[in-house]
Amino acid sequence: MSATLRLALLLLAVAVCQGYQSNDIDEEDELVYEPSKYGSLWPLPQKVRVSEVSFKLPSASFKIVDAKESSAGPSCSLLQNAYRRYYEYMFGSVRKPGYVKSRAAGPSEISELQVWITSADSECDSYPSLTSDESCEFALPHCLETFSQLVYEDAYGAKNINSTTISDFPRFAHRGILLDTSRHFLPIKVILANLEAMAMNKFNVFHWHIVDDPSFPYLSRTFPQLSQQGAYHPYTHVYTPADVKMIIEFARLRGIRVIPEFDTPGHTQSWGKGQKDLLTPCYSGTTPSGTFGPVNPILNTTYSFMRQLFSEISSVFPDAYVHLGGDEVDFSCWRSNPDIQNFMEQQGFGQDYSKLESFYIQKLLDIVTTTQKGYMIWQEVFDNGVKLKPDTVVHVWMGNRVEEEMQNVTEAGYTTILSSPWYLDYISYGQDWQKYYKVEPLSFKGTEAQKKLVIGGEACLWGEYVDATNLTPRLWPRASAVAERLWSAKEVTDISDAYSRLSMHRCRLVERGIPAEPLFTSFCPHEYKGV
Amino acid sequence: MSATLRLALLLLAVAVCQGYQSNDIDEEDELVYEPSKYGSLWPLPQKVRVSEVSFKLPSASFKIVDAKESSAGPSCSLLQNAYRRYYEYMFGSVRKPGYVKSRAAGPSEISELQVWITSADSECDSYPSLTSDESCEFALPHCLETFSQLVYEDAYGAKNINSTTISDFPRFAHRGILLDTSRHFLPIKVILANLEAMAMNKFNVFHWHIVDDPSFPYLSRTFPQLSQQGAYHPYTHVYTPADVKMIIEFARLRGIRVIPEFDTPGHTQSWGKGQKDLLTPCYSGTTPSGTFGPVNPILNTTYSFMRQLFSEISSVFPDAYVHLGGDEVDFSCWRSNPDIQNFMEQQGFGQDYSKLESFYIQKLLDIVTTTQKGYMIWQEVFDNGVKLKPDTVVHVWMGNRVEEEMQNVTEAGYTTILSSPWYLDYISYGQDWQKYYKVEPLSFKGTEAQKKLVIGGEACLWGEYVDATNLTPRLWPRASAVAERLWSAKEVTDISDAYSRLSMHRCRLVERGIPAEPLFTSFCPHEYKGV
Repeated sequence: MSATLRLALLLLAVAVCQGYQSNDIDEEDELVYEPSKYGSLWPLPQKVRVSEVSFKLPSASFKIVDAKESSAGPSCSLLQNAYRRYYEYMFGSVRKPGYVKSRAAGPSEISELQVWITSADSECDSYPSLTSDESCEFALPHCLETFSQLVYEDAYGAKNINSTTISDFPRFAHRGILLDTSRHFLPIKVILANLEAMAMNKFNVFHWHIVDDPSFPYLSRTFPQLSQQGAYHPYTHVYTPADVKMIIEFARLRGIRVIPEFDTPGHTQSWGKGQKDLLTPCYSGTTPSGTFGPVNPILNTTYSFMRQLFSEISSVFPDAYVHLGGDEVDFSCWRSNPDIQNFMEQQGFGQDYSKLESFYIQKLLDIVTTTQKGYMIWQEVFDNGVKLKPDTVVHVWMGNRVEEEMQNVTEAGYTTILSSPWYLDYISYGQDWQKYYKVEPLSFKGTEAQKKLVIGGEACLWGEYVDATNLTPRLWPRASAVAERLWSAKEVTDISDAYSRLSMHRCRLVERGIPAEPLFTSFCPHEYKGV
Repeated sequence: MSATLRLALLLLAVAVCQGYQSNDIDEEDELVYEPSKYGSLWPLPQKVRVSEVSFKLPSASFKIVDAKESSAGPSCSLLQNAYRRYYEYMFGSVRKPGYVKSRAAGPSEISELQVWITSADSECDSYPSLTSDESCEFALPHCLETFSQLVYEDAYGAKNINSTTISDFPRFAHRGILLDTSRHFLPIKVILANLEAMAMNKFNVFHWHIVDDPSFPYLSRTFPQLSQQGAYHPYTHVYTPADVKMIIEFARLRGIRVIPEFDTPGHTQSWGKGQKDLLTPCYSGTTPSGTFGPVNPILNTTYSFMRQLFSEISSVFPDAYVHLGGDEVDFSCWRSNPDIQNFMEQQGFGQDYSKLESFYIQKLLDIVTTTQKGYMIWQEVFDNGVKLKPDTVVHVWMGNRVEEEMQNVTEAGYTTILSSPWYLDYISYGQDWQKYYKVEPLSFKGTEAQKKLVIGGEACLWGEYVDATNLTPRLWPRASAVAERLWSAKEVTDISDAYSRLSMHRCRLVERGIPAEPLFTSFCPHEYKGV
């Protein structure tokens, strides 16, 4: 989906949307790289024209300032935060000893970058949304990221930028990363680092798969016993309200939405530890076996619990959407339980337990609707014929018959996002980023109207085998391949050019402190300094 | 190979070789773990008997001291360094506010660990070698590691140790890790961190694959142009003599030998940049193509270069062995070169270029022999029938017909180490540590005498896809599986017990600052704090 262009924010100065081409940054890598004419830009903007005219950026005095005409200024935290961040990315965090506040600009110098906000709604204090305009003229974080990617060092270590014109906007509006904090707890620091890396790749959705079977780290104000009993540890392995707030704000400043997922009725083993009677007791013959199955869909208490919990969630998470899960419900426990059997008979469901699942989901959707949130659901909910609101986002994740599923979902008129080809938890030897890169999300059969319903996709890093020790290098730059597929034009498919730009982009991530792993035999001018 | 037991070093105190069993450390993980009766010991000692009698270790006053009778004391840097290291592992690096130098020990308390060195040669200042006695009674670093693994926290956070008797020695004398600093440069910090992790797993050989085709980071005093021209960067991506010295000393203090590999005649593209005429010019028809092949074996200058280089290497690296490579020689360039063709004719080699390869290797081995070093070589050198000294170590790495190769090498009377099943650069989804763990190095057909020639093995982490960003979590705890296979008794094959101990061992690595990745869905009491 291409966002409409509104002239709402302008980066002024000669440097406005100007780019560069550098032939010497990776000179020593001639066996591996063919330098791209687009330098290290990633994801590639919609339109770029590079000239050979270069300007110097005087690091000792360069400024990013609000233009006089700008409608937003020093009081806009999002702006000021972004200026500081990108100044550091471009020039390093240490102020040079010879730093001077102003000096006359030389003939081929750019001494300041003026930021001109023309829109009344500059998102200084509000949250990004599905309909935010992310074109280069509008979205400040994205635009500064592009600008910073145009800056390169010449042979003397001086910062340069080439005169370039860029027109840019994302192809898809929903570009997400799923992280799973239930199978392994992820310390806040890890989440924040990955939000930073997301911004550097113009991802705009953090899909927070916050709870699941193994643990319940979300500290609920309404039901504190959920994490007290269900987290790996009630104090060291939980996200407090303050933590969640901080993560949301950190994301907001980078143009990233936070969509939490509270997956039910399956994937809820950890919920049962702190909430009596929430899960279905499984039976072995005529007696309870002591184990529990999915959420118990036949008790009124279940729905009053969900009503309270989702009421809290809707106020804690500002995004207009919440992900309700609904995947992989195992019917064997429901089938074993005599009370469930009776209920099935009363309702006339026969032996079709997917009808019981739909019964539950239907009631849950009604509850969530009252909280004024839209919802995302995994594809099974659609497949099972549950009645959905028109603005529901159906999340396609299964690996088989993907194109058929995309066709069906959009034929039924629902918006959809794609994850099936982008399960990054599956690792293999070699350059698997190419596989992710070659995916074309609109390759299914359908009308133009159907294609427009595909609003984006998400790279998913499920947590079975990742935690703080290995998550970041496993995610980057593999997810960067997905970032470009979701941002750049459909025609951007040259794999050699991508290899060249992505190699430089990953070194930039490393230089900015993100331990992004190498694509292949190579080096970075500044290697990762951590261990 | 089991080392002879010499009563040379004794850890005194009640705690000598005493162990523990803890049932509560991973209590919350009952879905995953069955606690092992051996606690978190890894690799499992040869003989362990655990009692239920526990003693407290007063962290506020606990001391590791030289026994009065000990033949080594405060002047032994290896001892003092190990004491400090293991004190920190057991009690944390911050001295407790209430630390007191001495106080009366309570009834079930162990207040000090006395270290009694009885051997004249305590390796205080010398280097570990293939024939070092590594039994628990002798090798201090290994023995302290075991002691530290016996310490556990009780419910009050107090440190405890259970009365246990241990008799320990490694099954194989050569237990190595290969790291490759040519395909990606590894900063010193990364190498040191992995030497620390090696010591925690009782590995005793760092096989340093220091140079190869892509880059030559070894700064040679004799031929500085090799790294000046052949390294990725002549200053930021090289190992200076001081760096090498520091790495060797850091390893020595942890009982680890450093065996450098200078692989020839193939894998030498980076050598050619700084050393004129070293490589064979390839021909396209009757004219040089501008590209180069393996080392040129027909010039006298080649051998005088090798003589000088290996003379330097033999003095820089104290270990009795050097690895000479000799793998994967591509004959196409030699075949294209008219001078080489003439030489082949003169020598009567016909079209058999493996004879030319052997001609080169033979001369190289003679050169290295004059430096008083033993040599290790990759299996092709043996396969090609090169005449080898009796103490040559043949390194088996190819994936096909492994058992046949082990049989042939040992039948010919050579010592050998195994790497074929332990190429850790090949990654896959899931718990591949189990595959590494299940390898039995002596499963080939052969006499007892042949089996004795298998002196160990190495886990290899080739560098195509790893650098500072991802090396450590990719290596650990996957290499730990190899560590136990090479250390513990042949009969130690219980995979569930291994899973339990290894899970706890990996959390210990994490707590000590090594970002060892998780085995599966789980948590550690102290998660990794880096990113």
